[in-house]
Amino acid sequence: MLPVVTARLTPPPIPRSRSAPSLPRGRGLKRQRHLASCQRMKESWSAFDTFEPHFRPLVVIELAKNTKEETKEWFTQRIVDKKKNGGAQLLVKPLVKEDGGKIDGNQNLYLVGASHLRLLLGAETVGLVKECNDNSMRTFTYSSRNTFKDFAEDNHDFLTMAECQYIIKHELENLRAKDERMIPGYPQAKLYPGKSIMRRLLTSGILLQIFPLHDTEELKKLRYTWYGQVKISYQPLDEIRCYFGETIALYFGFLEYFTFALVPMALIGIPYYVFAWEDYDKYVMFASFNLLWSTVILEVWKRCCAIMTYRWGTLLMKRQFEEPRPGFHGVLGINPVTGKEEPVYASIKRRIRIYLVSLPFVCLCLYFSLYVMMIYFELETWALDFHEENESSYSNLLLFVPSIIYAIVIEMMNRVYRYAAEFLTSWENHRLESSHQNHLILKVLVFNFLNCFASLFYIAFVLFDMKLLRQSLATLLITSQILNQFVEALLPYWLQKRHNTKVKKRVYSVKVDTDLSLFEQVNLEKEMGTYLGTFDDYLELFLQFGYVSLFSCVYPLAAVFAVLNNITEMYSDALKMCRVFKRPFSQPTANIGVWQLAFETMSVISVVTNCALIGLSPQVNALFPDSKTDLILIVVLVEHILLALKFVMAFVIPDKPRDIQIKLARLEFESLEALKQQQMKLAAESLKEETHGEKKKN
Amino acid sequence: MLPVVTARLTPPPIPRSRSAPSLPRGRGLKRQRHLASCQRMKESWSAFDTFEPHFRPLVVIELAKNTKEETKEWFTQRIVDKKKNGGAQLLVKPLVKEDGGKIDGNQNLYLVGASHLRLLLGAETVGLVKECNDNSMRTFTYSSRNTFKDFAEDNHDFLTMAECQYIIKHELENLRAKDERMIPGYPQAKLYPGKSIMRRLLTSGILLQIFPLHDTEELKKLRYTWYGQVKISYQPLDEIRCYFGETIALYFGFLEYFTFALVPMALIGIPYYVFAWEDYDKYVMFASFNLLWSTVILEVWKRCCAIMTYRWGTLLMKRQFEEPRPGFHGVLGINPVTGKEEPVYASIKRRIRIYLVSLPFVCLCLYFSLYVMMIYFELETWALDFHEENESSYSNLLLFVPSIIYAIVIEMMNRVYRYAAEFLTSWENHRLESSHQNHLILKVLVFNFLNCFASLFYIAFVLFDMKLLRQSLATLLITSQILNQFVEALLPYWLQKRHNTKVKKRVYSVKVDTDLSLFEQVNLEKEMGTYLGTFDDYLELFLQFGYVSLFSCVYPLAAVFAVLNNITEMYSDALKMCRVFKRPFSQPTANIGVWQLAFETMSVISVVTNCALIGLSPQVNALFPDSKTDLILIVVLVEHILLALKFVMAFVIPDKPRDIQIKLARLEFESLEALKQQQMKLAAESLKEETHGEKKKN
Repeated sequence: MLPVVTARLTPPPIPRSRSAPSLPRGRGLKRQRHLASCQRMKESWSAFDTFEPHFRPLVVIELAKNTKEETKEWFTQRIVDKKKNGGAQLLVKPLVKEDGGKIDGNQNLYLVGASHLRLLLGAETVGLVKECNDNSMRTFTYSSRNTFKDFAEDNHDFLTMAECQYIIKHELENLRAKDERMIPGYPQAKLYPGKSIMRRLLTSGILLQIFPLHDTEELKKLRYTWYGQVKISYQPLDEIRCYFGETIALYFGFLEYFTFALVPMALIGIPYYVFAWEDYDKYVMFASFNLLWSTVILEVWKRCCAIMTYRWGTLLMKRQFEEPRPGFHGVLGINPVTGKEEPVYASIKRRIRIYLVSLPFVCLCLYFSLYVMMIYFELETWALDFHEENESSYSNLLLFVPSIIYAIVIEMMNRVYRYAAEFLTSWENHRLESSHQNHLILKVLVFNFLNCFASLFYIAFVLFDMKLLRQSLATLLITSQILNQFVEALLPYWLQKRHNTKVKKRVYSVKVDTDLSLFEQVNLEKEMGTYLGTFDDYLELFLQFGYVSLFSCVYPLAAVFAVLNNITEMYSDALKMCRVFKRPFSQPTANIGVWQLAFETMSVISVVTNCALIGLSPQVNALFPDSKTDLILIVVLVEHILLALKFVMAFVIPDKPRDIQIKLARLEFESLEALKQQQMKLAAESLKEETHGEKKKN
Repeated sequence: MLPVVTARLTPPPIPRSRSAPSLPRGRGLKRQRHLASCQRMKESWSAFDTFEPHFRPLVVIELAKNTKEETKEWFTQRIVDKKKNGGAQLLVKPLVKEDGGKIDGNQNLYLVGASHLRLLLGAETVGLVKECNDNSMRTFTYSSRNTFKDFAEDNHDFLTMAECQYIIKHELENLRAKDERMIPGYPQAKLYPGKSIMRRLLTSGILLQIFPLHDTEELKKLRYTWYGQVKISYQPLDEIRCYFGETIALYFGFLEYFTFALVPMALIGIPYYVFAWEDYDKYVMFASFNLLWSTVILEVWKRCCAIMTYRWGTLLMKRQFEEPRPGFHGVLGINPVTGKEEPVYASIKRRIRIYLVSLPFVCLCLYFSLYVMMIYFELETWALDFHEENESSYSNLLLFVPSIIYAIVIEMMNRVYRYAAEFLTSWENHRLESSHQNHLILKVLVFNFLNCFASLFYIAFVLFDMKLLRQSLATLLITSQILNQFVEALLPYWLQKRHNTKVKKRVYSVKVDTDLSLFEQVNLEKEMGTYLGTFDDYLELFLQFGYVSLFSCVYPLAAVFAVLNNITEMYSDALKMCRVFKRPFSQPTANIGVWQLAFETMSVISVVTNCALIGLSPQVNALFPDSKTDLILIVVLVEHILLALKFVMAFVIPDKPRDIQIKLARLEFESLEALKQQQMKLAAESLKEETHGEKKKN
């Protein structure tokens, strides 16, 4: 009955001409910088077009070298076309050398930007949340722009560059086919109404890549505050967020938090190593502390995370009103929530795919992985037997063969599985990017968990060899940490550096970084590797958490190594982000998503393993010389008490600090009151109309 | 910065005079019934006063016999006073005999009602959610009244009587002192600004009781459909909800659901009894089924509950914007969420009280209860020994003494503890009624759980006497069920019936129920017992669930008894609600609250107990003649797998059905859009003002 409000991108009420921009009352120091665009604001919406005196390149689009002119023209036309014609209403410029000449003859690099006004309207479309003058966080709307902090018509820093790039990416991704049946010039690249054009261009190989440009000046500043100084300090999370977006900033926030949280464990773990404590009571104490501590840190992280993401505005961003992810396909229908037209896909179909295909497949893979592990252990015993029987340098070498084979097989399985998981998750056709990510993460996580820890579990609970367990644990932990740091950051950095020099030489005479022209910068950046998201970084932390907590009572020193690793990890990850990869698109996020659940599950499992390990330890066994039964019963009892305690603690500690709760409740209250107001207005209008109609009748 | 909307109870836009009530388009059959009140609607708000041609008594207030005239006058004046003067703007009439004469000289019974308009405005204040014409559920506002289903200016059935009574109760409870320092005529009954007047009158003994009137006609209809017919059918939950409110309807809904859910368990349990199955594998199967089944039914209940409460509109009612509960006290301050003036109380103080006083007290009581139980078992053994040594009829009697003493002590402890728990929870000073109830329930629950099951646990896991366990379980279950039904419903019903006849005789000549005058009805109802809430009913179900699930593998027949009991329970509870007690005030609720958690916790505990019982059973022990250790390890493994399965199931089954989720998301989306609209309007206004201001300057 009530018409759904679709105010987005319809012409906002523009005030009649005023003599001067009057709204920024003393705020916005850079007011005078872009007076030209400010003048434009006074013109009506219809005057808004692709003409822009200050074109600021934000995003680079690279098309294939041999793309047909017809296609290029159509695509750029669709990008600059008016919103009401189904375009994205952005600005596009081909990349040219400073002297105006093209290099390779065929133009295939385009710079995408947008007018300030367009970006503000885009911020409303994506639902950015910004701080208001009264320090509350509110969803940005163009019409209420003057209530926001630091907003001024001429303050082009109101939206950070990362936000602008996110908006442009969002607009490009949501550029959908209207009545085109195919991409012009490519009859095999079919289109249908509602299909994302970008997606089709990418899948048919016409669009090679799309990436946001670095801001060399800002990046230099960030690098300096982040890892340029030698002094020990917190990471500049807010600056990282401004430059790289919330997902990456949250990863670094979590890395920092997690490192600090591990310090107490590490400190308590050191004397165990130094004094070679082997008393069971000390082990029990360490393990108990560890288990409760891990619950506390995970609960407290939720609070810290809520504080951070509230400040960044992403806590309030509504996930369910997100536009569907670009890869999402389905027949065009009406979204039951928003009432807007978009592709729809029956959730029952998705569930069938998840439960009848993905789940059995994952289980099969897990079984296969276990099977491979069993073969490895058999090979190992066989090699050991062989070595003992006929000892020689040849047999000595043979001892390593099973491990090497196993490592290679595991690596291969990991890659194949990862590919399969990505394919399956795409095929499940999730509507939202976040739920797609969560399903992918869950799949990969379970498999990696098994691959990493199954052998340790086998050693601990089947072979009962604590010495071997400690040894394997230490080896796995330390080698994986060193390897990771090397493969992940240092090696790419070195390769990148070499490559950069080569490219620079090729493109231009060698210069210092800062003096690179835009042309050079784009050509350098387009060759850089693509950052594939925080997945692998979190996975590394997750496995580390497993090494630290699962068998903590066997190897208390693990926490020390973890802390040391994380400190260098912070620097190498920062280096990686700033120097190795293309700038990634910013991605708003309110929490670390499924990782929270993963870490919590790990901490529950670690209660079980630690209790079992303590029960198995010879010191504890010596206390119950007669009755193993009593021992087991006591261990089980302790385990249940610890688990109960964990759940009570998780229940009692609120997920959000009280002041954030109040702020959220206030926003909800206001939005409900606003709804009431709107209903009132509608009712009043309908009353008026009816009265009017009756009068006419009479 | 944005002014908080405080549109409540400010004059709504009244349409200018119209010739005829034009709004109900074809709806509302009873349109002509109250034309007089419809005429009144056309008058302006200021004309709205205590004069009402059709006074419909809804709520009865009984003051103490010797209440001073001054106090009566002040109180009734405050009730009828205009909202803007701090009154409740309701209608009050002293109860008089039909012939106009008073009975006991001193008038102390008042009838409270309200005009139709006042009730509609009150519905907005309490935030009632009603169905709209487009079948969506929305918060009712007076101004948008015409968008609601079945609304017509002259349809006085738009609000159910229960809703009207709830509104009046809410308004009376929120009648707060302005500048009065005390209740007039009672200098010892201190008041301070913001103190609930009703609460002070109740605590100082001036106000004896306040209760809603029965609607004899409706009640008769309800009784007929509920338990008047012999045919087997579902309970008329929607009718129950209309008459008694959501809390009670939800209890009956849960009772019905729970009974149906127990049927499969009962059916599977019967052959165990009939064929006297004692094989361990059958027991294991029964227990496993039981455990997974109990998880499923609890998860599915959440979905059923969501469907029901969405239909009733309470799923959407916002708890956090609730006004503070009447008993809540504190210094007058600003609510940070709504921005309205109301008593505030630091939550840190409350938490200190909970964790430093209530929690230790509860623990102490639990310890004491266990201690008493131990004494009981000692007494029992002592009595048994004494009986064996010198067997006589005297010693035979002595055998029962410990049980009798224990039963009496338990009962006394229960009562004292209940009183203490109520006192402590009041003292914790919770802001919301719901959180007060939850804390009270949690306290009482833990204690009752221990009292009921501690002895069974002791028998099972300390004495290892399965035969005694089965016997105690059967005795406890059956006697408690029979006793409960008798004490709870049949006895009061009989007493009430006797009493009614007496009162009727005293007041008037004996007549049939239907012909009672209002005067008689009020005098009858005021003597009826007060229904103290669903607490004891849920507690009974909870303990029953405990008997059924905790030791289900020892006594599969428990489910059968539970089903039989619940069927009669439904009828006896219905009888109790309709004939024994005063009509209770309706209480909106979205779910069964802390009971859901309680039942879920019970089902987790039952996994542990059942696994332990199976491990203890001689049949299973016979399978592992050599190694108790293996047995225990296998039992623990199975237990962990079952627990993991439970959690995965609870995680995978969504709490709300998909269509409800979509409806909720749509409402949230709309309310956010509305907020944006409002911000737009405000921005536009501020722009206008500024332009105006500038023009003036120029």
